[in-house]
Amino acid sequence: MFNDTDIVLAEKRLVGEKAADFIKEGMIVGLGTGSTVYYTMQKLGRMVKEGLNISAVSTSLSTSTLAKELGIPLKSLNEVSRIDITIDGADEVDYMFRGIKGGGGALLFEKIVAYYSDQNIWVIDSGKYVSKLGKFPLPVEVIPMGYIQFLKKMQENNYKCVLRKNEKDIFKTDSGNVIIDVNIEKVTDYQEFNHWLLNIPGVVETGLFLDVVDKIIMPDKNDVKILIKDK
Amino acid sequence: MFNDTDIVLAEKRLVGEKAADFIKEGMIVGLGTGSTVYYTMQKLGRMVKEGLNISAVSTSLSTSTLAKELGIPLKSLNEVSRIDITIDGADEVDYMFRGIKGGGGALLFEKIVAYYSDQNIWVIDSGKYVSKLGKFPLPVEVIPMGYIQFLKKMQENNYKCVLRKNEKDIFKTDSGNVIIDVNIEKVTDYQEFNHWLLNIPGVVETGLFLDVVDKIIMPDKNDVKILIKDK
Repeated sequence: MFNDTDIVLAEKRLVGEKAADFIKEGMIVGLGTGSTVYYTMQKLGRMVKEGLNISAVSTSLSTSTLAKELGIPLKSLNEVSRIDITIDGADEVDYMFRGIKGGGGALLFEKIVAYYSDQNIWVIDSGKYVSKLGKFPLPVEVIPMGYIQFLKKMQENNYKCVLRKNEKDIFKTDSGNVIIDVNIEKVTDYQEFNHWLLNIPGVVETGLFLDVVDKIIMPDKNDVKILIKDK
Repeated sequence: MFNDTDIVLAEKRLVGEKAADFIKEGMIVGLGTGSTVYYTMQKLGRMVKEGLNISAVSTSLSTSTLAKELGIPLKSLNEVSRIDITIDGADEVDYMFRGIKGGGGALLFEKIVAYYSDQNIWVIDSGKYVSKLGKFPLPVEVIPMGYIQFLKKMQENNYKCVLRKNEKDIFKTDSGNVIIDVNIEKVTDYQEFNHWLLNIPGVVETGLFLDVVDKIIMPDKNDVKILIKDK
């Protein structure tokens, strides 16, 4: 019998591998970060071994390490002309294709790569598809200088938030910044809230991905379904 | 006889020293970066030697170094409860108290410190006061990952821009980012343009300071004048 964790792992594998079907010969592929993209990368590694010719752009140190292990050729975002397709996970997605990302702390590079991609596919297990965003706290990447002032400002505005830690130490992103996880359950206008955050000096990026994803691959009984955003 | 440079230096000294008059016992003082704030700091150093008790928050490594030389006590922005007053320079200021900063590359820390200050004073020589912003290119601080994509995007949108260099090397900010200097002569709505830039992933901060400064101290014949923004 599967326990919950095994079911979730099976879902991640199913949708992660499915996403690899969209990767075609000659493409520049953005590779997200996390436990679902892990399975996309495992399959992509096999496809490359079998002769598929692609280049990948990574969104984190951990994804770069895995890509090297799997023999997936990497280029930097500054070396490529554009990205054809990016495959990434998400921490929450709603029916309007809006998502929260950054649970793993890679939101900045993920958002940059997504922005310069012609197509974005997210792979999620069924628990990530929600009727309303916000059960998952919003990760906000902030410059270390003055982040305590940012925390105070958020609290003054009645947003519960916590500085992310790694056991005892302050968590640092691949860019050396800190993450403040903000409870956004009371937010209704995500666009406006995101704009407000980005205008606060020291905020580098937020985990709100509002107009990014084109296709969502998620589990559907023992198969997958693919949600396609209306353009 | 003064040559032009001497006149400008005399102006910088005049306005820089004048700004120090606004620093009072017990204040937390934000210290900007650059050749005009240099004179504020020289005077502040003398005031501290004569017994004035203040703490300063620096906006750059170079300002921190100078403050230490002058015996001005420093705290980090994370250590103070708030900032009473910040004194900084600017590269251009218009009649609506909107400015461009970042010629020295310290715009990010300057903007963070300004944002958390109760009052902001800018000290400028007469050449910095302009009828329309944009002769000075707008510095935009960008994450190194993918900055070439940002350059391409700006060029596609018909903004001339250049990557800032230090002789041969790429200029890096105190946060390790790059600066793209963007020609904004054609921009009319600065707020909208700033918003557009901040929404591009990878853009950390821009040198547009639109709603920041409270007082401008500038030369007026052989004296100074102080412009005060209507609230």
